[in-house]
Amino acid sequence: MSTSFYTCDPAKLHAYTCSVFKAMGCSDADAKLAADVLQSSDLRGIDSHGVARLSGYVRLWKAGRIKANAVGSVIRETASTATYDADSGLGLVMASNAMDIAIEKAKECGSGWVAIKNSNHFGIAGYHAMKALEHDMIGMALTNASPLVAPTFSTERLLGTNPISFAIPAGQEQPVVIDLATSSAANGKLEIAQRAGKKVPLGWVQDKEGQLSDDPSALKKGGSLIPLGSRDDLGSHKGYALSAFVDIFSGVLSGANYGPWVPPFVSFLPLAENMPGEGIGHFVGAWRIDGFSDLTDFKANMDQWIQRFKSAETVEGQDEVIIPGEPEYRAQLIREKEGIPLIDKVYNDLLEIADDLKLDLNVTV
Amino acid sequence: MSTSFYTCDPAKLHAYTCSVFKAMGCSDADAKLAADVLQSSDLRGIDSHGVARLSGYVRLWKAGRIKANAVGSVIRETASTATYDADSGLGLVMASNAMDIAIEKAKECGSGWVAIKNSNHFGIAGYHAMKALEHDMIGMALTNASPLVAPTFSTERLLGTNPISFAIPAGQEQPVVIDLATSSAANGKLEIAQRAGKKVPLGWVQDKEGQLSDDPSALKKGGSLIPLGSRDDLGSHKGYALSAFVDIFSGVLSGANYGPWVPPFVSFLPLAENMPGEGIGHFVGAWRIDGFSDLTDFKANMDQWIQRFKSAETVEGQDEVIIPGEPEYRAQLIREKEGIPLIDKVYNDLLEIADDLKLDLNVTV
Repeated sequence: MSTSFYTCDPAKLHAYTCSVFKAMGCSDADAKLAADVLQSSDLRGIDSHGVARLSGYVRLWKAGRIKANAVGSVIRETASTATYDADSGLGLVMASNAMDIAIEKAKECGSGWVAIKNSNHFGIAGYHAMKALEHDMIGMALTNASPLVAPTFSTERLLGTNPISFAIPAGQEQPVVIDLATSSAANGKLEIAQRAGKKVPLGWVQDKEGQLSDDPSALKKGGSLIPLGSRDDLGSHKGYALSAFVDIFSGVLSGANYGPWVPPFVSFLPLAENMPGEGIGHFVGAWRIDGFSDLTDFKANMDQWIQRFKSAETVEGQDEVIIPGEPEYRAQLIREKEGIPLIDKVYNDLLEIADDLKLDLNVTV
Repeated sequence: MSTSFYTCDPAKLHAYTCSVFKAMGCSDADAKLAADVLQSSDLRGIDSHGVARLSGYVRLWKAGRIKANAVGSVIRETASTATYDADSGLGLVMASNAMDIAIEKAKECGSGWVAIKNSNHFGIAGYHAMKALEHDMIGMALTNASPLVAPTFSTERLLGTNPISFAIPAGQEQPVVIDLATSSAANGKLEIAQRAGKKVPLGWVQDKEGQLSDDPSALKKGGSLIPLGSRDDLGSHKGYALSAFVDIFSGVLSGANYGPWVPPFVSFLPLAENMPGEGIGHFVGAWRIDGFSDLTDFKANMDQWIQRFKSAETVEGQDEVIIPGEPEYRAQLIREKEGIPLIDKVYNDLLEIADDLKLDLNVTV
């Protein structure tokens, strides 16, 4: 029987992912951490940012754009702020390290903020923001990314899908975890539509002249993704402004590249000329809840907030209002038990990596 | 000759606004500050949040919901965070005071954050965020607001238009000032369409069953505004999540009300039952730029960011890419010279206030 999915055992997939990072030259600790970030994405159902990206990291490392044994360092700081030079390392590792620094600063003075330069793709923003939760803090994580999105009124790709994440603890309820790209749709959704031979809603992508297109390959043909809002009369300038905020905090504030100069994730694309900074940039931070509120009161009010929204009346045909982070939490409960499904293409990529790096791929349940 | 606008002299309008706040019982300093905030909005072309709101503040004061001689106080703090009880005062004044505290904290330790409870409508978020600029800091301001927006999949109004503002200094160029409601359109835009007898784009408002409507009076008929994104297939869950972030930071973290319990701006609507907090809530803060980057480098890179986006190729029929804050800056240059235009309805409201409070209205050029 043929299936379009390989179901993988999370522990085996994690071990394999570790072995790949170790083969690249990462320390045991860094390899484990990088695998943790990818596994968090795969467990939470964000298939685009888990091991589906592993071959991309390997290629960037082969191209000399990722340094596996990088050592990050704080190059500037105040009591509540710092800038971290990621030494061309894995963003997965470096952003997590930087978040640890932010959390330590927040313990000391109520909040902590770290801008990161000279980095690479950091996985899901939510992973880094969620690190704050166990410390009863609110976490925030931003990153800029390869330019694919055109600002409102432009035909040029000047911004990445630049995500914003906030993780907010609750009491009895699950934390609220916001993790959203500031474009109306991610590239991954276009790829799924392309494979299925389907058109996409007007508002996801524009052609190279800047006209809205329902062709999922419009991006590949020189078009651009569109900021959240989708049309200027529906507020796409707001999505553009939010993406600009993420780019400026991640890129300009840290000393990384920004806008059209952000290095591409795909290793075969050349770097831009006259790059103004180093690598890609992130921005992470944490606020201590008891810096503002009694912790017990806060958690009780968060529970009430969540319960009120969950019990809201719904539009006909919809069962429930969804709390940010809820679908990912549910996916994780299922995938921890039933395994992580990988599509053929991703599984075959893992096989190729195994072949190339002389590793065993033994990940299915 | 009849005209639909009264053109007002900014200084005279400011003096009149001051006199209204003083007649309510505000101190000279508070009255001037409140008038500053409203004038900033009128000069920047955000007509919905300037003196157009003055009659609303007067009515809330008459209803006993705004205390003119309120004294705000810090009720909890760490080195970089604080919670501020606004004592039922004018949000215009209290949020500005709280921003001063945030800036002082940022001077000391790199960043400063103040959650405000027990407050009222604070005007434009951008005013408070922009206070950081003269200190070479990045400012942030959030507020929750009367529930008018339905979360994705719901028919209930559970969120306000909950704005997000960031003000970021540049060098030779004007600062980047982001100030956006997290709904796809503001109520004011529906009112303009209603007066003009025009339909609105599908995606601004839904009827009480939760179906998209092009009727600008759908909100008045029991419908709701829609989060940025406009449709679930275009990412309205992201606008909802951003609005939730603003509500939680402004309301839950500070001890103010949140969600459907946020007090209405219009004084004739009753307060909700079983309110979980006090008044409405805001969240303001500032990051010191030199806590992350050399200030000169940062400003040079901001200039390059702005110049690159300004010079981007445009879609046919569009002249230029707009930098966040640019239209408001341009409006201010014009209105400082040529005066502030007020529509009949707003001017007549000012006349009524003058009559009621025994003041002279002498504001036209």
